Amino acid sequence: MSPRAAGRLTESSLIRAVRQRAAGGPGVRVGIGDDCAVLEPASGTLLLATTDLLLEDVHFRRRYAEPADIGWKSVAVNLSDIASMGGRPRWALVALACPTGTSLEEAEAFYAGALALAGEHGVALVGGDTSVSPAGWLVNVTVLGEVTLAPVLRSTARLGDVVAVTGTVGRAAAGLAVLDRAKAPPGVPAEWLADVTGAHLRPRPRVAEGQWLASAGGVTAMIDLSDGLATDLGHLAEESGVGARVEIERLPIAESTRGLARALGDDPLAWATGGGEDYELLLTSEPNAFSRLGEGLERATGARLSRIGEIVADGAVHFVDARGRERPATPGFEHFAAERRRG
Amino acid sequence: MSPRAAGRLTESSLIRAVRQRAAGGPGVRVGIGDDCAVLEPASGTLLLATTDLLLEDVHFRRRYAEPADIGWKSVAVNLSDIASMGGRPRWALVALACPTGTSLEEAEAFYAGALALAGEHGVALVGGDTSVSPAGWLVNVTVLGEVTLAPVLRSTARLGDVVAVTGTVGRAAAGLAVLDRAKAPPGVPAEWLADVTGAHLRPRPRVAEGQWLASAGGVTAMIDLSDGLATDLGHLAEESGVGARVEIERLPIAESTRGLARALGDDPLAWATGGGEDYELLLTSEPNAFSRLGEGLERATGARLSRIGEIVADGAVHFVDARGRERPATPGFEHFAAERRRG
Repeated sequence: MSPRAAGRLTESSLIRAVRQRAAGGPGVRVGIGDDCAVLEPASGTLLLATTDLLLEDVHFRRRYAEPADIGWKSVAVNLSDIASMGGRPRWALVALACPTGTSLEEAEAFYAGALALAGEHGVALVGGDTSVSPAGWLVNVTVLGEVTLAPVLRSTARLGDVVAVTGTVGRAAAGLAVLDRAKAPPGVPAEWLADVTGAHLRPRPRVAEGQWLASAGGVTAMIDLSDGLATDLGHLAEESGVGARVEIERLPIAESTRGLARALGDDPLAWATGGGEDYELLLTSEPNAFSRLGEGLERATGARLSRIGEIVADGAVHFVDARGRERPATPGFEHFAAERRRG
Repeated sequence: MSPRAAGRLTESSLIRAVRQRAAGGPGVRVGIGDDCAVLEPASGTLLLATTDLLLEDVHFRRRYAEPADIGWKSVAVNLSDIASMGGRPRWALVALACPTGTSLEEAEAFYAGALALAGEHGVALVGGDTSVSPAGWLVNVTVLGEVTLAPVLRSTARLGDVVAVTGTVGRAAAGLAVLDRAKAPPGVPAEWLADVTGAHLRPRPRVAEGQWLASAGGVTAMIDLSDGLATDLGHLAEESGVGARVEIERLPIAESTRGLARALGDDPLAWATGGGEDYELLLTSEPNAFSRLGEGLERATGARLSRIGEIVADGAVHFVDARGRERPATPGFEHFAAERRRG
């Protein structure tokens, strides 16, 4: 086979390459190659299913997102949904459409990125679809998972519950602010740049954390941060029929994020409240369970849990400063507003 | 709410509208509205999972495909995959991206089309995703199903098996040929036009037929006809490590298809062998089981089963005429060939 022929992207060459890399796994009776995947869920479990689109120039730009990044992230956003229910991700179906002129190597790099993250979490690639795209890279990933205990919903927060978040907020928005610029801002430490751009391009879903939290007892509701704290807390509050009050001084914002905000003249609080794609877990807990949960989570997984506010009766999300004054929240991502872009 | 506000497409307005229509169903613990659907598979079953992209100007054109048609077909192509394994479809996740300027009514019509077919098969819409699209309508549907007996694979055909197909072949290609023209050909009966364009726009997946065939005994392999007889029989033969010989005179071609071919100056055999998207079931059976299967299937479901050839040792697909002379097959759909379009 000539090098040129080897690089030509056809459906069969791509499927052949992906099948070689995706070697099945536990619970996979039939993987890639038949009309359906045939899977064997563990007995006594409930099935979790989630699906997400990632579209070029809506969710990412090719100028800074390599095919492997796109593959990684398209799996990450779905694993994060499984994590937010306290589930164990098991199987992924990956549909990819690439524009004419895409090479087999680029398409393979996409799958390598997807498989790298899937492999870290024991998730098998069991199916998908491929097509030419009329405009840019288009990805849809579906992840199936399992939960043995009752899944943690977003609709079950109760009045007086603590509102808490894992890790830090605003880091992915800082990364996007850097990536959106042609040049990195001068005088900023390289590790800050790597930290925030890595958070944006290759988020690490809180899968182990979600499972630990769901099994620890005392977590009353959970959601992952995809559209931004203000929007996602709004979803949790609305579905639970309650409101929420967040103390902005308590928001965990990384040093890298604050440093980039200074360098770029941006507001780190706007990133922390309105920026999407942190893929941290936002949860509510019984008030007297919070300390135990925070200490236990850090011991078990290394992740910090920060108390950022409480559930209130008033059906809205309020951000208040140390003196209790309300601060307007930056609205999150609206998927049909073409002028604003996530990612 | 003013009529204008009612028609504005936002993520929340769309999700609200879809949630009202998708009311859960058996085995649905949590449907649309949380991070994941929570599903309860029937005990003792294996899980089937399949996913398909449908992209504007690759798989369909908006000039002739209404939103409700796109919704219908995006579910149909996945149900057909479940059918080809002999499975029972249960749950669907539907991801939709529409261009700026799409109205809420158009997006709702898409879901109405999807739900109409899903409802016919007892399939609940349990999740999805929505986004603005950078270019045209983009759809990805994932369907999950169950199978109690062993699923029928495409890789288990054996030497000497009968090759058979349900219904007719080439009808969807005839429909596409009509739809691709600005005007319908003159002097063609309206019922022919309705038959072939309906086959293309609103295919009826052979779900009941697939389940009956899988449980009847004697079916050795099965696949659905999405990319065309030559291509899909090629897949079945390749995965089974065999070849196939098809007698072109035996191909079941509808009167409407033949009539349109005459009117348009096209070759009905090219449609029958190379045209995709008939979503019929192509199967192999033990030779002495064929008569029983054909009679039983027609009695149980009304669908005709036609014997069209046999499995041979030579690892290729041959189309032969009544005198045994080989006839070149029209190649099927290649998903990365931008110059050729499916749908």
